[in-house]
Amino acid sequence: MANPVLPSSGALTPLGLDAVRLAPGFWGDRVALNRDVTIAHCQEWMEKAGWIGNFRGGGVRQGREFSDSEIYKLLEAMAWTDHPALPELAGTVAGAQEPDGYLNTRWSGDRYSDLEWGHELYCYGHLIQAGVARLRTHGEDELTQVVRRAADHVCDRFMDTTETDGHPEIEMALVELHRATGAERYLEMARRFVERRGLPALGDIPFGRAYFQDDIPARRATTFRGHAVRALYLACGAVDVAIETGDTDLLAAVEAQWEHTVARRTHLTGGMGSRHADESFGEDYELSPDRAYSETCAGIASIMLSHRLLLATGDARYADLAERTMYNVLATGVALDGRSFFYANPLQVRTPAEPSEGMNLGQGGGVRSPWFTVSCCPNNIARTLGSLAAHVATSSPDGVQIHHHMAGEIRAMGLTLRVETDYPWSGDVTVRVLQGASGRIALRVPPWARGASFSYGPHDADARLQRVSRETAPGYAVAEGEWRPGDELRLHLPMTPRWTHPDHRIDAIRGSVAVERGPLVYCAESAAGDPPLTGVAVHLATPAEHAPDPDSAGDRVVELEAQATRAPSADTAWPYGQDAPDAGAAGEQLSLRLVPYHRRGNRGPATMRVWLPTAD
Amino acid sequence: MANPVLPSSGALTPLGLDAVRLAPGFWGDRVALNRDVTIAHCQEWMEKAGWIGNFRGGGVRQGREFSDSEIYKLLEAMAWTDHPALPELAGTVAGAQEPDGYLNTRWSGDRYSDLEWGHELYCYGHLIQAGVARLRTHGEDELTQVVRRAADHVCDRFMDTTETDGHPEIEMALVELHRATGAERYLEMARRFVERRGLPALGDIPFGRAYFQDDIPARRATTFRGHAVRALYLACGAVDVAIETGDTDLLAAVEAQWEHTVARRTHLTGGMGSRHADESFGEDYELSPDRAYSETCAGIASIMLSHRLLLATGDARYADLAERTMYNVLATGVALDGRSFFYANPLQVRTPAEPSEGMNLGQGGGVRSPWFTVSCCPNNIARTLGSLAAHVATSSPDGVQIHHHMAGEIRAMGLTLRVETDYPWSGDVTVRVLQGASGRIALRVPPWARGASFSYGPHDADARLQRVSRETAPGYAVAEGEWRPGDELRLHLPMTPRWTHPDHRIDAIRGSVAVERGPLVYCAESAAGDPPLTGVAVHLATPAEHAPDPDSAGDRVVELEAQATRAPSADTAWPYGQDAPDAGAAGEQLSLRLVPYHRRGNRGPATMRVWLPTAD
Repeated sequence: MANPVLPSSGALTPLGLDAVRLAPGFWGDRVALNRDVTIAHCQEWMEKAGWIGNFRGGGVRQGREFSDSEIYKLLEAMAWTDHPALPELAGTVAGAQEPDGYLNTRWSGDRYSDLEWGHELYCYGHLIQAGVARLRTHGEDELTQVVRRAADHVCDRFMDTTETDGHPEIEMALVELHRATGAERYLEMARRFVERRGLPALGDIPFGRAYFQDDIPARRATTFRGHAVRALYLACGAVDVAIETGDTDLLAAVEAQWEHTVARRTHLTGGMGSRHADESFGEDYELSPDRAYSETCAGIASIMLSHRLLLATGDARYADLAERTMYNVLATGVALDGRSFFYANPLQVRTPAEPSEGMNLGQGGGVRSPWFTVSCCPNNIARTLGSLAAHVATSSPDGVQIHHHMAGEIRAMGLTLRVETDYPWSGDVTVRVLQGASGRIALRVPPWARGASFSYGPHDADARLQRVSRETAPGYAVAEGEWRPGDELRLHLPMTPRWTHPDHRIDAIRGSVAVERGPLVYCAESAAGDPPLTGVAVHLATPAEHAPDPDSAGDRVVELEAQATRAPSADTAWPYGQDAPDAGAAGEQLSLRLVPYHRRGNRGPATMRVWLPTAD
Repeated sequence: MANPVLPSSGALTPLGLDAVRLAPGFWGDRVALNRDVTIAHCQEWMEKAGWIGNFRGGGVRQGREFSDSEIYKLLEAMAWTDHPALPELAGTVAGAQEPDGYLNTRWSGDRYSDLEWGHELYCYGHLIQAGVARLRTHGEDELTQVVRRAADHVCDRFMDTTETDGHPEIEMALVELHRATGAERYLEMARRFVERRGLPALGDIPFGRAYFQDDIPARRATTFRGHAVRALYLACGAVDVAIETGDTDLLAAVEAQWEHTVARRTHLTGGMGSRHADESFGEDYELSPDRAYSETCAGIASIMLSHRLLLATGDARYADLAERTMYNVLATGVALDGRSFFYANPLQVRTPAEPSEGMNLGQGGGVRSPWFTVSCCPNNIARTLGSLAAHVATSSPDGVQIHHHMAGEIRAMGLTLRVETDYPWSGDVTVRVLQGASGRIALRVPPWARGASFSYGPHDADARLQRVSRETAPGYAVAEGEWRPGDELRLHLPMTPRWTHPDHRIDAIRGSVAVERGPLVYCAESAAGDPPLTGVAVHLATPAEHAPDPDSAGDRVVELEAQATRAPSADTAWPYGQDAPDAGAAGEQLSLRLVPYHRRGNRGPATMRVWLPTAD
């Protein structure tokens, strides 16, 4: 089972890369581009930057203290895609391993001397995930041996201490290595790492212990907090430990934290993290669009967590958030040519950022960069797209569940199903039975799809499907039967553009709306030559509609337009006064073009906003 | 003339500490507390932290690389207040000076090796300002000799290079030393420091060169940008150079930058700086209340700049902003007991912060701290309150101008005037002539004082003033005459609480209002035992009114109240939906108590907001 997450129990069993094959389409194209272009791009940049050379030794060490982890994420991506460069790169890594299993190019002379910031266990976590990917797609080789030695070294060194790492990650990696090898000590080590964090296990730092979730034990926290990627990786590890140890209290605690975070600390895109200073969540309802950090890696971590909670519970809400985050963070994070990336994903850009040819800090999120000084995001995208097919569908004793509507083929429970769809541009999904069996087939119906309809079965004489269920409620549309080749299931999800309003407690976007269509968040963008967005307010009385003639260079893309007013733009000497502002009351009328948020930044430096003030 | 800024030309001449004496009142009390308590508090903390000990040498150096500057700011405060501890502290500093004038406890072994971050010239700037204060209040002594040697060393070392410091400050200090000593080389050195910045003069840094204003020469920039304190200190130096060299273009450039910044990058409190990550301004209209950084030192720097522009031009708008910033940033920055301080001054606090007994990072702005790791703000407050009286009034060839209505006595142009007022709690200001002369007396009328009235002259038989001018326009109320002892001028500024709306382009506070009264911004606060502020929305149809019975522990304080609604607080699973929020439409009705913003945080940990959603 070629799968990054393979729990021994839970409501649903994931189908792996060997059971789900993506066809060309929104995601199939991106997965192919990742395999053919992005993985090599990442390797070239890390060779050029000297981060791979660190394993060869000899010169001055290059890169940040955690740069080893970038090579490991790339190895994981290569494992999922059976990339021919893997053996040589794994050999380079193996050359730096010490006889007792220790492996780190930054700290080998000064082991574990700075657990708060050193990232040594974090790096092992990514190494182990790469090894699990290799075990499950290929079997034992030099990489997996390196991984076993490293994991054993970690258990030897840390099993009976009270220490942990400033960056969670190794917890979920060790559980997965336990799942892949059967070795109990990896699970026990992961369990101890989860339990000892928050007692506390680390020294205090200027950001405070919440930064690395060492303020409260995971089972006692009520929300995700601190550094967003750290918080979400820890939650993944906690779920994995909970599943393998039968710890229902711990699972329930993470579910409650997820609920709180989704209700109060998540951007419309599914993005998480509001603060730049410490890359953290911020407070409840602190969801400013212009300073949204929404790191690409936090989006990926959120997808990883929701996937685990979906497998554990079967609850569609986890797949709903994962889908939102896939289309609006993951798909946004990488350019259409697979060679540049967003680190931050703000929901408003006030000043066009100039693109940079070289490595740059690039955390502003105004323009995609080919590489970063801290370059977690490109490699994280590579390993996520490399294993994306494993998120699509699951099985349970009574049948197959399709959570993400991606064109491709699924084989499980004796069934072979071909999914045909142009989703998310179209809301029509057809599942054709190629090989039959009896059982239930479930298709997820997202919560925005009010008025969805579902039909299934063999065709009648007029080529219509025989069973029809209209007004399918959100959750899953389920059909049970004795499926034969040629049978079909057809799901229709209404794709009417919709105005979306924020909760009244989200101060930063009061009086504004966003436009969504299907799973996609849209944005207004003003690149060179476009009219500016300053002072624009939209008219809710007129619905947002499909724009004619999208200029999409051959891709299938649905653009939208909304009626708007642009207020006069004269400055006042002091921008606070005794008269209420009257945005939209008087001004130029215009049609505002809206593009999918994931396509922002494709026309060069631009201003952008997801949340649009209302004129009414 | 005991004055921190003494230009050789300009529209107005400042009156120094020898010409303006503050009486008990809002500011007189704070100035006395500063002299009697805060200065000793700062000295104790810096002795305890080892920052003073750095000058004595011997042990491991303590504190950040710029900690010398803190001792210099405190020396300046001591100079203005003729503090008895000055000579000994100055002697300690003198002991660390090297034979060629170099003086820095961090970098002496490695001089000028990191101009971007080393702060050596920044430290000299504060040292020189302390020396100027000493020269003008006392005359030559050991401190002023140290300062002359240091300034000469700087001129020797930097006159003919292309270098400058990562933190502007020395520019204005050198101009003032030129003014105080007549030495031309200090002015020339200051001029070169101003001119070479932005060519660029410094290496690039991850924050980008705009962080230290090395992206564009000062005379070509259109707005303040980057690190707020750096930007405003540089602008002060540029104005000083412009005045002394007759560079009207440079002066006009800074005035235009001030205009842009006030219109687009300034919080309602007068606070400047929106970003925590790099303590910078952020973009136009990026004015989020919860993440407002609004560093106390940036407020002080803004007051320093507006004071300089007021002296140069005589334009009341500069005094207007300075007053707003004094009452809402400077007065907020220090507790009522003079022993704890705010570093950041956000306009919204979502989560009560716990107070800390020790030194803390403390940049969140939720609670005042006795000291900080970076402790610029307490010492900056100390030197500013120590010289505050020098901001009150000016003279010009035709008379005296009173810019800030503080109770006290003013002597200038042959006049002795006693100002009697309970401002800002009352809007009545009486200026009594104690010693007469002929000339014009001008009293500033702030722009919010619609319907102000003004009367002056000798009393008639019914004890009324003989000359009355009603409906005085904002700017200055001016009376000309042959003033005799017993004559009076009476200004009445209406103090009706008012709703204040933001410009429609300030996204973060759309649909919200603030309440102001006179120069004071108000806020709602929820300390322990108070009802929470979540979901509260105010009714504009009912005006804000004076609250009965303010609990102000003997101080004179005007509190306010507004009618409001509190919406039900149930969470939704996902905080974005197809229904418009209806804050205020249904919910509990309440009277919302409002306190002056500068008194926030006086009742322990609390949530707080200046901008209140509107229910209507």
